[in-house]
Amino acid sequence: MKSDFISPGISPAGGRDPDLAEPAAVRRAIRRGDFRSFTNHAAPGFAQGNLVIVPAPFADDFAQFCELNSRALPVMGRSAAGVPHLPELASDLDLRTDVGGYMVFENGVLTGTPRDIRDLWRDDLVAFVLGCSFSFESVLQSHGVRLRHLDEGNVSAMYVTNRATVPVGPFGGDMVVSMRPMTPQDAIRAALICQHYPEYHGAPVHIGLPHLLGIDDLTRSYGGHGLTALREDELPVFWACAATAQIAAVAAGLPLCITHYKAHMVLTDVPVLSKSAGEPTFGGRDA
Amino acid sequence: MKSDFISPGISPAGGRDPDLAEPAAVRRAIRRGDFRSFTNHAAPGFAQGNLVIVPAPFADDFAQFCELNSRALPVMGRSAAGVPHLPELASDLDLRTDVGGYMVFENGVLTGTPRDIRDLWRDDLVAFVLGCSFSFESVLQSHGVRLRHLDEGNVSAMYVTNRATVPVGPFGGDMVVSMRPMTPQDAIRAALICQHYPEYHGAPVHIGLPHLLGIDDLTRSYGGHGLTALREDELPVFWACAATAQIAAVAAGLPLCITHYKAHMVLTDVPVLSKSAGEPTFGGRDA
Repeated sequence: MKSDFISPGISPAGGRDPDLAEPAAVRRAIRRGDFRSFTNHAAPGFAQGNLVIVPAPFADDFAQFCELNSRALPVMGRSAAGVPHLPELASDLDLRTDVGGYMVFENGVLTGTPRDIRDLWRDDLVAFVLGCSFSFESVLQSHGVRLRHLDEGNVSAMYVTNRATVPVGPFGGDMVVSMRPMTPQDAIRAALICQHYPEYHGAPVHIGLPHLLGIDDLTRSYGGHGLTALREDELPVFWACAATAQIAAVAAGLPLCITHYKAHMVLTDVPVLSKSAGEPTFGGRDA
Repeated sequence: MKSDFISPGISPAGGRDPDLAEPAAVRRAIRRGDFRSFTNHAAPGFAQGNLVIVPAPFADDFAQFCELNSRALPVMGRSAAGVPHLPELASDLDLRTDVGGYMVFENGVLTGTPRDIRDLWRDDLVAFVLGCSFSFESVLQSHGVRLRHLDEGNVSAMYVTNRATVPVGPFGGDMVVSMRPMTPQDAIRAALICQHYPEYHGAPVHIGLPHLLGIDDLTRSYGGHGLTALREDELPVFWACAATAQIAAVAAGLPLCITHYKAHMVLTDVPVLSKSAGEPTFGGRDA
Protein backbone atom coordinates (compact mmCIF):
# COMPACT_ATOMS: atom_id res chain seq x y z
CA MET A 1 0.00 0.00 0.00
CA LYS A 2 1.45 3.30 -1.07
CA SER A 3 -1.21 5.68 0.17
CA ASP A 4 1.38 8.33 0.98
CA PHE A 5 2.69 8.38 -2.55
CA ILE A 6 0.69 11.51 -3.23
CA SER A 7 0.94 14.45 -0.90
CA PRO A 8 -1.78 16.79 -2.05
CA GLY A 9 -1.16 20.40 -1.30
CA ILE A 10 -3.01 23.55 -2.07
CA SER A 11 -1.46 25.64 -4.78
CA PRO A 12 -1.47 29.23 -3.55
CA ALA A 13 -1.97 30.23 -7.16
CA GLY A 14 -4.94 27.96 -7.74
CA GLY A 15 -7.48 29.19 -10.25
CA ARG A 16 -6.11 32.67 -10.03
CA ASP A 17 -3.09 31.62 -12.02
CA PRO A 18 -3.97 32.40 -15.64
CA ASP A 19 -2.38 29.12 -16.66
CA LEU A 20 -4.89 27.32 -14.46
CA ALA A 21 -8.01 29.09 -15.71
CA GLU A 22 -8.51 26.74 -18.65
CA PRO A 23 -9.10 23.06 -17.93
CA ALA A 24 -6.95 22.01 -20.90
CA ALA A 25 -4.01 23.92 -19.42
CA VAL A 26 -4.49 22.24 -16.06
CA ARG A 27 -4.68 18.83 -17.70
CA ARG A 28 -1.42 19.53 -19.50
CA ALA A 29 0.17 20.65 -16.23
CA ILE A 30 -1.04 17.47 -14.54
CA ARG A 31 0.37 15.35 -17.37
CA ARG A 32 3.75 17.12 -16.99
CA GLY A 33 3.65 16.64 -13.22
CA ASP A 34 3.58 20.41 -12.68
CA PHE A 35 0.15 20.53 -11.01
CA ARG A 36 -0.19 18.40 -7.89
CA SER A 37 -2.89 20.27 -5.94
CA PHE A 38 -6.50 19.62 -5.14
CA THR A 39 -8.44 20.61 -8.25
CA ASN A 40 -11.21 22.54 -6.51
CA HIS A 41 -9.40 25.85 -7.11
CA ALA A 42 -8.57 25.06 -10.74
CA ALA A 43 -10.49 26.04 -13.88
CA PRO A 44 -13.51 27.58 -12.18
CA GLY A 45 -16.59 27.56 -14.38
CA PHE A 46 -15.93 24.11 -15.83
CA ALA A 47 -17.32 20.80 -14.63
CA GLN A 48 -15.13 18.45 -12.66
CA GLY A 49 -15.86 14.77 -12.30
CA ASN A 50 -15.20 11.70 -10.22
CA LEU A 51 -13.45 8.78 -11.91
CA VAL A 52 -14.48 5.18 -11.34
CA ILE A 53 -12.96 2.45 -13.52
CA VAL A 54 -14.30 -1.09 -13.30
CA PRO A 55 -13.82 -4.27 -15.34
CA ALA A 56 -16.41 -4.64 -18.09
CA PRO A 57 -18.34 -7.51 -16.44
CA PHE A 58 -19.30 -5.10 -13.64
CA ALA A 59 -19.99 -2.05 -15.78
CA ASP A 60 -23.70 -2.54 -16.37
CA ASP A 61 -24.43 -3.18 -12.70
CA PHE A 62 -22.42 -0.12 -11.80
CA ALA A 63 -24.29 1.98 -14.36
CA GLN A 64 -27.62 0.88 -12.91
CA PHE A 65 -26.37 1.55 -9.40
CA CYS A 66 -25.58 5.10 -10.52
CA GLU A 67 -28.96 5.48 -12.17
CA LEU A 68 -30.85 4.39 -9.07
CA ASN A 69 -28.78 6.67 -6.86
CA SER A 70 -28.44 9.55 -9.28
CA ARG A 71 -28.49 12.24 -6.63
CA ALA A 72 -25.09 11.03 -5.48
CA LEU A 73 -23.98 9.42 -8.74
CA PRO A 74 -24.91 11.50 -11.79
CA VAL A 75 -23.13 9.97 -14.78
CA MET A 76 -21.36 12.49 -17.01
CA GLY A 77 -19.79 9.90 -19.24
CA ARG A 78 -19.11 6.17 -19.71
CA SER A 79 -16.35 4.91 -21.94
CA ALA A 80 -16.41 1.89 -24.18
CA ALA A 81 -14.44 -1.05 -22.80
CA GLY A 82 -10.72 -0.49 -23.26
CA VAL A 83 -11.11 3.16 -24.30
CA PRO A 84 -9.57 5.63 -21.81
CA HIS A 85 -11.11 8.65 -23.52
CA LEU A 86 -14.37 10.56 -23.19
CA PRO A 87 -14.25 13.11 -26.00
CA GLU A 88 -17.67 14.44 -25.07
CA LEU A 89 -16.08 15.76 -21.86
CA ALA A 90 -12.80 16.97 -23.40
CA SER A 91 -11.39 16.15 -26.81
CA ASP A 92 -7.84 15.62 -25.54
CA LEU A 93 -8.76 13.86 -22.29
CA ASP A 94 -6.72 10.78 -21.47
CA LEU A 95 -8.08 9.23 -18.32
CA ARG A 96 -4.81 7.32 -17.78
CA THR A 97 -2.66 10.44 -17.38
CA ASP A 98 -4.85 13.50 -16.86
CA VAL A 99 -6.07 13.00 -13.32
CA GLY A 100 -3.84 14.31 -10.56
CA GLY A 101 -3.86 11.09 -8.63
CA TYR A 102 -5.40 7.63 -8.67
CA MET A 103 -6.35 5.01 -6.11
CA VAL A 104 -5.99 1.38 -7.18
CA PHE A 105 -8.05 -1.21 -5.33
CA GLU A 106 -7.56 -4.95 -5.81
CA ASN A 107 -10.14 -7.22 -4.22
CA GLY A 108 -11.26 -4.24 -2.15
CA VAL A 109 -7.80 -3.39 -0.84
CA LEU A 110 -5.93 -0.20 -1.70
CA THR A 111 -2.75 -1.32 -3.43
CA GLY A 112 -1.46 1.91 -4.89
CA THR A 113 -1.89 5.63 -5.43
CA PRO A 114 -0.02 6.26 -8.67
CA ARG A 115 0.09 9.50 -10.63
CA ASP A 116 -0.78 7.78 -13.88
CA ILE A 117 -2.27 4.42 -14.78
CA ARG A 118 -0.88 3.73 -18.24
CA ASP A 119 0.71 0.53 -16.98
CA LEU A 120 -2.54 -0.64 -15.40
CA TRP A 121 -4.85 0.05 -18.32
CA ARG A 122 -6.48 -3.00 -19.89
CA ASP A 123 -8.77 -3.69 -22.79
CA ASP A 124 -11.60 -4.76 -20.47
CA LEU A 125 -11.72 -1.62 -18.33
CA VAL A 126 -14.70 0.75 -18.48
CA ALA A 127 -14.34 4.29 -17.14
CA PHE A 128 -17.19 6.28 -15.61
CA VAL A 129 -17.02 9.98 -14.88
CA LEU A 130 -19.57 11.16 -12.30
CA GLY A 131 -20.57 14.73 -11.46
CA CYS A 132 -18.75 16.50 -8.62
CA SER A 133 -19.85 19.33 -6.37
CA PHE A 134 -16.66 21.22 -7.18
CA SER A 135 -18.46 22.03 -10.43
CA PHE A 136 -20.98 24.38 -8.85
CA GLU A 137 -18.73 26.12 -6.34
CA SER A 138 -17.77 28.94 -8.68
CA VAL A 139 -21.44 29.41 -9.59
CA LEU A 140 -22.30 29.80 -5.91
CA GLN A 141 -19.52 32.30 -5.46
CA SER A 142 -20.67 34.29 -8.49
CA HIS A 143 -24.07 34.62 -6.76
CA GLY A 144 -22.51 35.97 -3.60
CA VAL A 145 -22.54 32.77 -1.57
CA ARG A 146 -19.44 32.69 0.58
CA LEU A 147 -17.54 29.40 0.48
CA ARG A 148 -15.24 29.84 3.43
CA HIS A 149 -13.40 26.61 2.76
CA LEU A 150 -12.28 28.02 -0.59
CA ASP A 151 -11.37 31.38 0.93
CA GLU A 152 -9.19 29.49 3.36
CA GLY A 153 -7.55 27.35 0.66
CA ASN A 154 -9.32 24.21 1.82
CA VAL A 155 -11.70 21.63 0.35
CA SER A 156 -15.16 20.60 1.42
CA ALA A 157 -15.21 17.81 4.00
CA MET A 158 -16.88 14.46 3.30
CA TYR A 159 -18.73 12.08 5.61
CA VAL A 160 -20.20 8.61 5.35
CA THR A 161 -23.87 8.80 6.38
CA ASN A 162 -26.37 6.30 7.74
CA ARG A 163 -28.50 6.57 4.56
CA ALA A 164 -28.45 3.42 2.47
CA THR A 165 -28.10 3.52 -1.28
CA VAL A 166 -30.32 1.41 -3.49
CA PRO A 167 -28.10 -1.64 -4.09
CA VAL A 168 -27.49 -3.21 -7.49
CA GLY A 169 -25.52 -6.42 -7.90
CA PRO A 170 -22.35 -6.14 -5.79
CA PHE A 171 -22.76 -2.37 -5.33
CA GLY A 172 -24.43 -0.85 -2.29
CA GLY A 173 -23.59 0.62 1.09
CA ASP A 174 -24.20 3.98 2.65
CA MET A 175 -24.19 7.36 1.01
CA VAL A 176 -21.31 9.80 1.29
CA VAL A 177 -21.98 13.52 1.55
CA SER A 178 -19.84 16.61 1.14
CA MET A 179 -20.22 19.47 3.63
CA ARG A 180 -19.78 23.20 3.38
CA PRO A 181 -20.18 25.57 6.33
CA MET A 182 -22.52 28.43 5.40
CA THR A 183 -24.57 31.15 6.99
CA PRO A 184 -28.27 30.23 7.04
CA GLN A 185 -29.06 32.74 4.33
CA ASP A 186 -26.29 31.43 2.10
CA ALA A 187 -27.53 27.90 2.77
CA ILE A 188 -30.95 28.87 1.42
CA ARG A 189 -29.41 30.62 -1.57
CA ALA A 190 -27.23 27.61 -2.25
CA ALA A 191 -30.27 25.32 -2.24
CA LEU A 192 -32.11 27.57 -4.69
CA ILE A 193 -29.09 27.73 -7.00
CA CYS A 194 -27.94 24.12 -6.81
CA GLN A 195 -31.37 22.69 -7.60
CA HIS A 196 -30.65 23.80 -11.17
CA TYR A 197 -27.64 21.48 -11.34
CA PRO A 198 -28.88 17.91 -10.89
CA GLU A 199 -25.88 16.84 -12.96
CA TYR A 200 -23.69 17.97 -10.05
CA HIS A 201 -25.81 16.61 -7.16
CA GLY A 202 -28.53 19.28 -7.19
CA ALA A 203 -29.84 20.87 -4.01
CA PRO A 204 -28.37 19.99 -0.64
CA VAL A 205 -29.77 16.84 0.93
CA HIS A 206 -29.43 18.08 4.48
CA ILE A 207 -28.84 21.18 6.54
CA GLY A 208 -27.96 21.69 10.12
CA LEU A 209 -28.46 18.50 12.12
CA PRO A 210 -25.65 16.08 11.22
CA HIS A 211 -26.59 13.60 13.95
CA LEU A 212 -29.65 12.77 11.85
CA LEU A 213 -27.27 11.52 9.17
CA GLY A 214 -25.32 9.45 11.70
CA ILE A 215 -22.50 12.01 11.80
CA ASP A 216 -21.62 12.42 15.45
CA ASP A 217 -18.44 14.43 15.06
CA LEU A 218 -17.87 16.83 12.18
CA THR A 219 -14.15 16.90 12.84
CA ARG A 220 -13.89 13.24 11.84
CA SER A 221 -14.35 13.54 8.11
CA TYR A 222 -14.08 10.80 5.52
CA GLY A 223 -10.48 10.82 4.38
CA GLY A 224 -9.58 13.16 7.20
CA HIS A 225 -9.47 16.35 5.21
CA GLY A 226 -11.66 19.38 4.55
CA LEU A 227 -12.88 22.35 6.56
CA THR A 228 -14.82 20.90 9.49
CA ALA A 229 -14.95 23.73 12.02
CA LEU A 230 -18.15 25.74 12.07
CA ARG A 231 -18.50 29.33 13.18
CA GLU A 232 -21.32 30.39 15.44
CA ASP A 233 -23.17 31.91 12.49
CA GLU A 234 -22.83 28.88 10.23
CA LEU A 235 -24.74 25.69 9.59
CA PRO A 236 -23.26 22.57 8.00
CA VAL A 237 -24.82 22.11 4.55
CA PHE A 238 -24.61 18.65 3.01
CA TRP A 239 -24.70 17.50 -0.60
CA ALA A 240 -24.85 13.95 -1.92
CA CYS A 241 -21.33 13.02 -3.04
CA ALA A 242 -20.02 10.64 -5.67
CA ALA A 243 -17.47 9.29 -3.22
CA THR A 244 -20.47 7.05 -2.55
CA ALA A 245 -19.34 5.11 -5.63
CA GLN A 246 -15.82 4.73 -4.37
CA ILE A 247 -16.80 3.11 -1.12
CA ALA A 248 -19.38 0.97 -2.91
CA ALA A 249 -16.82 -0.25 -5.44
CA VAL A 250 -14.32 -0.99 -2.70
CA ALA A 251 -16.86 -2.82 -0.57
CA ALA A 252 -17.87 -4.85 -3.63
CA GLY A 253 -14.35 -6.30 -3.58
CA LEU A 254 -13.93 -6.08 -7.35
CA PRO A 255 -10.77 -7.75 -8.59
CA LEU A 256 -9.72 -4.33 -9.86
CA CYS A 257 -11.17 -0.87 -9.37
CA ILE A 258 -9.40 2.40 -10.05
CA THR A 259 -10.69 5.77 -8.87
CA HIS A 260 -9.38 9.31 -8.72
CA TYR A 261 -7.48 10.26 -5.59
CA LYS A 262 -9.62 12.38 -3.27
CA ALA A 263 -10.05 15.96 -4.46
CA HIS A 264 -8.01 15.27 -7.59
CA MET A 265 -10.84 15.29 -10.07
CA VAL A 266 -11.26 14.80 -13.82
CA LEU A 267 -11.14 18.28 -15.33
CA THR A 268 -13.54 18.58 -18.25
CA ASP A 269 -14.16 21.23 -20.87
CA VAL A 270 -17.89 21.23 -20.04
CA PRO A 271 -18.85 24.75 -18.97
CA VAL A 272 -21.08 25.16 -15.93
CA LEU A 273 -23.61 27.68 -17.11
CA SER A 274 -25.17 30.15 -14.72
CA LYS A 275 -28.79 29.02 -14.79
CA SER A 276 -30.08 30.55 -11.64
CA ALA A 277 -32.61 33.32 -11.48
CA GLY A 278 -32.08 36.08 -8.96
CA GLU A 279 -32.07 34.74 -5.46
CA PRO A 280 -34.26 36.41 -2.93
CA THR A 281 -32.77 38.58 -0.26
CA PHE A 282 -34.02 38.95 3.28
CA GLY A 283 -36.15 41.96 2.58
CA GLY A 284 -35.65 45.31 1.02
CA ARG A 285 -32.18 45.17 2.44
CA ASP A 286 -30.02 42.18 2.00
CA ALA A 287 -29.18 40.60 5.34
CA MET B 1 -58.61 48.52 25.17
CA LYS B 2 -60.67 45.46 24.44
CA SER B 3 -57.99 43.07 23.31
CA ASP B 4 -59.76 40.13 24.90
CA PHE B 5 -62.89 40.74 22.89
CA ILE B 6 -61.91 37.97 20.55
CA SER B 7 -60.94 34.58 21.86
CA PRO B 8 -59.64 32.74 18.86
CA GLY B 9 -59.94 29.01 19.04
CA ILE B 10 -59.09 26.23 16.69
CA SER B 11 -62.01 24.64 14.98
CA PRO B 12 -61.46 20.89 15.15
CA ALA B 13 -63.22 20.66 11.83
CA GLY B 14 -61.08 23.26 10.12
CA GLY B 15 -60.67 22.82 6.39
CA ARG B 16 -61.92 19.26 6.62
CA ASP B 17 -65.46 20.52 7.12
CA PRO B 18 -66.93 20.64 3.63
CA ASP B 19 -68.59 23.94 4.50
CA LEU B 20 -65.14 25.37 5.13
CA ALA B 21 -63.50 24.15 1.94
CA GLU B 22 -64.67 27.11 -0.15
CA PRO B 23 -63.49 30.57 0.85
CA ALA B 24 -66.90 32.09 0.03
CA ALA B 25 -68.53 29.70 2.50
CA VAL B 26 -66.06 30.64 5.20
CA ARG B 27 -66.60 34.35 4.55
CA ARG B 28 -70.35 33.83 4.89
CA ALA B 29 -69.82 31.92 8.14
CA ILE B 30 -67.63 34.72 9.45
CA ARG B 31 -70.26 37.30 8.51
CA ARG B 32 -72.87 35.27 10.39
CA GLY B 33 -70.56 34.92 13.40
CA ASP B 34 -70.46 31.15 12.97
CA PHE B 35 -66.74 30.91 12.24
CA ARG B 36 -64.47 32.34 14.93
CA SER B 37 -61.29 30.27 14.47
CA PHE B 38 -57.88 30.97 13.11
CA THR B 39 -58.19 30.82 9.33
CA ASN B 40 -55.07 28.75 8.65
CA HIS B 41 -57.12 25.55 8.54
CA ALA B 42 -59.86 27.04 6.36
CA ALA B 43 -60.22 26.90 2.58
CA PRO B 44 -56.90 25.22 1.78
CA GLY B 45 -55.68 25.94 -1.72
CA PHE B 46 -56.82 29.57 -1.73
CA ALA B 47 -54.76 32.62 -0.90
CA GLN B 48 -55.22 34.33 2.44
CA GLY B 49 -54.16 37.89 3.09
CA ASN B 50 -53.25 40.39 5.76
CA LEU B 51 -55.43 43.48 6.09
CA VAL B 52 -54.00 46.94 6.70
CA ILE B 53 -56.32 49.96 6.46
CA VAL B 54 -54.85 53.46 6.61
CA PRO B 55 -56.22 56.96 5.98
CA ALA B 56 -55.71 58.10 2.39
CA PRO B 57 -52.96 60.66 3.15
CA PHE B 58 -50.71 57.80 4.28
CA ALA B 59 -51.63 55.33 1.54
CA ASP B 60 -48.94 56.20 -0.99
CA ASP B 61 -46.17 56.06 1.60
CA PHE B 62 -47.51 52.75 2.82
CA ALA B 63 -47.64 51.40 -0.73
CA GLN B 64 -44.03 52.39 -1.31
CA PHE B 65 -43.04 50.88 2.03
CA CYS B 66 -44.58 47.62 0.85
CA GLU B 67 -42.84 47.84 -2.50
CA LEU B 68 -39.41 48.37 -0.95
CA ASN B 69 -39.96 45.52 1.50
CA SER B 70 -41.84 43.23 -0.81
CA ARG B 71 -40.46 40.02 0.65
CA ALA B 72 -42.45 40.71 3.79
CA LEU B 73 -45.14 42.91 2.26
CA PRO B 74 -46.32 41.59 -1.11
CA VAL B 75 -49.38 43.61 -2.08
CA MET B 76 -52.30 41.51 -3.33
CA GLY B 77 -54.71 44.41 -3.59
CA ARG B 78 -55.24 48.09 -2.78
CA SER B 79 -58.68 49.60 -2.61
CA ALA B 80 -59.73 53.03 -3.76
CA ALA B 81 -60.32 55.48 -0.91
CA GLY B 82 -63.62 54.77 0.80
CA VAL B 83 -64.14 51.48 -1.03
CA PRO B 84 -64.14 48.42 1.29
CA HIS B 85 -64.09 45.96 -1.61
CA LEU B 86 -61.41 44.25 -3.65
CA PRO B 87 -63.34 42.35 -6.33
CA GLU B 88 -60.12 41.09 -7.89
CA LEU B 89 -59.62 39.02 -4.73
CA ALA B 90 -63.25 37.93 -4.27
CA SER B 91 -66.32 39.37 -5.93
CA ASP B 92 -68.43 39.38 -2.76
CA LEU B 93 -65.65 40.44 -0.39
CA ASP B 94 -66.61 43.13 2.12
CA LEU B 95 -63.55 44.06 4.12
CA ARG B 96 -65.74 45.57 6.86
CA THR B 97 -67.46 42.32 7.76
CA ASP B 98 -65.62 39.36 6.24
CA VAL B 99 -62.52 39.17 8.40
CA GLY B 100 -62.80 37.14 11.58
CA GLY B 101 -61.44 39.88 13.78
CA TYR B 102 -59.96 43.36 13.57
CA MET B 103 -57.51 45.41 15.57
CA VAL B 104 -58.17 49.16 15.74
CA PHE B 105 -55.25 51.44 16.53
CA GLU B 106 -55.67 55.15 17.23
CA ASN B 107 -52.48 57.19 17.44
CA GLY B 108 -50.58 53.94 17.78
CA VAL B 109 -52.67 52.60 20.65
CA LEU B 110 -54.91 49.53 20.39
CA THR B 111 -58.41 50.78 21.15
CA GLY B 112 -60.54 47.85 20.07
CA THR B 113 -60.78 44.38 18.59
CA PRO B 114 -64.23 44.34 17.01
CA ARG B 115 -65.71 41.58 14.87
CA ASP B 116 -66.75 44.01 12.17
CA ILE B 117 -65.82 47.58 11.33
CA ARG B 118 -68.92 48.91 9.58
CA ASP B 119 -69.24 51.65 12.20
CA LEU B 120 -65.61 52.66 11.77
CA TRP B 121 -65.51 52.78 7.99
CA ARG B 122 -64.88 56.20 6.46
CA ASP B 123 -64.68 57.66 2.99
CA ASP B 124 -60.97 58.40 3.39
CA LEU B 125 -59.86 54.88 4.30
CA VAL B 126 -57.70 52.81 1.95
CA ALA B 127 -57.45 49.05 2.43
CA PHE B 128 -54.40 46.99 1.54
CA VAL B 129 -54.37 43.21 1.42
CA LEU B 130 -50.89 41.67 1.69
CA GLY B 131 -49.86 38.09 1.00
CA CYS B 132 -49.80 35.62 3.89
CA SER B 133 -47.78 32.46 4.40
CA PHE B 134 -50.97 30.56 5.23
CA SER B 135 -51.47 30.60 1.46
CA PHE B 136 -48.67 28.15 0.71
CA GLU B 137 -49.15 25.75 3.60
CA SER B 138 -51.49 23.43 1.75
CA VAL B 139 -49.10 23.42 -1.22
CA LEU B 140 -46.28 22.33 1.06
CA GLN B 141 -48.45 19.58 2.50
CA SER B 142 -49.42 18.39 -0.96
CA HIS B 143 -45.69 17.94 -1.68
CA GLY B 144 -45.20 15.84 1.40
CA VAL B 145 -43.76 18.51 3.67
CA ARG B 146 -44.98 17.92 7.19
CA LEU B 147 -46.35 21.01 8.92
CA ARG B 148 -46.50 19.78 12.48
CA HIS B 149 -48.15 22.95 13.73
CA LEU B 150 -51.13 22.21 11.47
CA ASP B 151 -51.21 18.55 12.46
CA GLU B 152 -51.41 19.72 16.05
CA GLY B 153 -54.15 22.26 15.36
CA ASN B 154 -51.84 25.20 15.92
CA VAL B 155 -50.61 28.20 13.92
CA SER B 156 -47.11 29.22 12.94
CA ALA B 157 -45.34 31.38 15.53
CA MET B 158 -44.18 34.92 14.74
CA TYR B 159 -41.16 36.85 15.97
CA VAL B 160 -39.87 40.39 15.64
CA THR B 161 -36.32 40.24 14.27
CA ASN B 162 -33.33 42.58 14.41
CA ARG B 163 -33.50 43.13 10.63
CA ALA B 164 -34.53 46.66 9.68
CA THR B 165 -37.02 47.34 6.94
CA VAL B 166 -36.36 50.04 4.36
CA PRO B 167 -38.29 52.97 5.86
CA VAL B 168 -40.66 55.20 3.88
CA GLY B 169 -42.26 58.28 5.42
CA PRO B 170 -43.62 57.34 8.83
CA PHE B 171 -43.28 53.60 8.16
CA GLY B 172 -40.25 51.56 9.23
CA GLY B 173 -39.07 49.35 12.05
CA ASP B 174 -37.90 45.77 12.20
CA MET B 175 -39.10 42.84 10.20
CA VAL B 176 -41.43 40.20 11.58
CA VAL B 177 -41.01 36.55 10.58
CA SER B 178 -43.20 33.48 10.85
CA MET B 179 -41.63 30.19 11.95
CA ARG B 180 -42.40 26.57 11.21
CA PRO B 181 -40.52 23.65 12.78
CA MET B 182 -39.39 21.22 10.07
CA THR B 183 -36.99 18.39 9.53
CA PRO B 184 -33.91 19.52 7.61
CA GLN B 185 -35.03 17.73 4.48
CA ASP B 186 -38.48 19.28 4.64
CA ALA B 187 -36.84 22.66 5.18
CA ILE B 188 -34.92 22.24 1.94
CA ARG B 189 -38.05 21.08 0.12
CA ALA B 190 -40.00 24.01 1.50
CA ALA B 191 -37.39 26.45 0.23
CA LEU B 192 -37.49 24.92 -3.25
CA ILE B 193 -41.28 25.05 -3.31
CA CYS B 194 -41.85 28.45 -1.72
CA GLN B 195 -39.43 30.24 -4.04
CA HIS B 196 -42.19 29.87 -6.64
CA TYR B 197 -44.56 31.97 -4.52
CA PRO B 198 -43.03 35.43 -4.12
CA GLU B 199 -46.60 36.73 -3.74
CA TYR B 200 -46.73 34.82 -0.43
CA HIS B 201 -43.23 35.70 0.85
CA GLY B 202 -41.25 33.29 -1.32
CA ALA B 203 -38.44 31.16 0.05
CA PRO B 204 -37.59 31.17 3.75
CA VAL B 205 -35.30 34.00 4.82
CA HIS B 206 -33.60 32.01 7.53
CA ILE B 207 -33.10 28.49 8.81
CA GLY B 208 -31.74 27.18 12.01
CA LEU B 209 -29.94 29.89 13.99
CA PRO B 210 -32.57 32.23 15.45
CA HIS B 211 -30.04 34.14 17.57
CA LEU B 212 -28.73 35.62 14.32
CA LEU B 213 -32.15 37.26 13.89
CA GLY B 214 -32.10 38.59 17.44
CA ILE B 215 -34.48 35.87 18.62
CA ASP B 216 -33.09 34.62 21.91
CA ASP B 217 -36.04 32.51 23.04
CA LEU B 218 -38.34 30.76 20.59
CA THR B 219 -40.97 30.28 23.27
CA ARG B 220 -41.51 34.05 23.43
CA SER B 221 -43.35 34.58 20.16
CA TYR B 222 -44.88 37.80 18.89
CA GLY B 223 -48.45 37.78 20.09
CA GLY B 224 -47.68 34.82 22.33
CA HIS B 225 -49.17 32.13 20.15
CA GLY B 226 -48.02 29.48 17.73
CA LEU B 227 -46.06 26.26 17.91
CA THR B 228 -42.67 27.16 19.38
CA ALA B 229 -41.29 23.86 20.70
CA LEU B 230 -38.82 22.11 18.42
CA ARG B 231 -38.16 18.43 18.32
CA GLU B 232 -34.63 17.11 18.21
CA ASP B 233 -34.96 16.36 14.50
CA GLU B 234 -36.35 19.79 13.57
CA LEU B 235 -34.94 23.16 12.63
CA PRO B 236 -36.86 26.43 12.94
CA VAL B 237 -37.57 27.73 9.43
CA PHE B 238 -38.40 31.42 9.09
CA TRP B 239 -40.35 33.33 6.45
CA ALA B 240 -40.75 37.09 6.10
CA CYS B 241 -44.18 37.98 7.48
CA ALA B 242 -46.61 40.77 6.71
CA ALA B 243 -47.15 41.39 10.42
CA THR B 244 -44.17 43.64 9.65
CA ALA B 245 -46.74 46.11 8.32
CA GLN B 246 -48.83 45.97 11.44
CA ILE B 247 -46.02 46.92 13.78
CA ALA B 248 -44.81 49.57 11.32
CA ALA B 249 -48.28 51.12 11.10
CA VAL B 250 -48.67 51.09 14.85
CA ALA B 251 -45.21 52.60 15.43
CA ALA B 252 -46.04 55.30 12.89
CA GLY B 253 -48.76 56.47 15.29
CA LEU B 254 -51.31 57.01 12.55
CA PRO B 255 -54.48 58.72 13.78
CA LEU B 256 -56.32 55.55 12.68
CA CYS B 257 -55.11 52.20 11.48
CA ILE B 258 -57.17 49.00 11.28
CA THR B 259 -55.66 45.58 10.73
CA HIS B 260 -56.89 42.00 10.85
CA TYR B 261 -56.68 40.28 14.21
CA LYS B 262 -53.75 37.87 14.31
CA ALA B 263 -54.35 34.63 12.37
CA HIS B 264 -57.79 35.86 11.25
CA MET B 265 -56.95 36.56 7.64
CA VAL B 266 -58.76 37.88 4.58
CA LEU B 267 -59.97 34.79 2.72
CA THR B 268 -59.77 35.30 -1.03
CA ASP B 269 -60.99 33.35 -4.02
CA VAL B 270 -57.49 33.41 -5.55
CA PRO B 271 -56.34 29.82 -6.04
CA VAL B 272 -52.81 28.92 -5.06
CA LEU B 273 -51.62 26.90 -8.00
CA SER B 274 -49.13 24.10 -7.59
CA LYS B 275 -46.17 25.48 -9.49
CA SER B 276 -43.41 23.37 -8.11
CA ALA B 277 -41.48 20.80 -10.02
CA GLY B 278 -40.61 17.55 -8.35
CA GLU B 279 -38.48 18.11 -5.32
CA PRO B 280 -35.35 16.07 -5.00
CA THR B 281 -35.13 13.29 -2.50
CA PHE B 282 -32.08 12.23 -0.57
CA GLY B 283 -31.03 9.63 -3.04
CA GLY B 284 -32.55 6.69 -4.73
CA ARG B 285 -34.52 6.26 -1.57
CA ASP B 286 -36.31 9.13 0.02
CA ALA B 287 -34.94 9.89 3.46
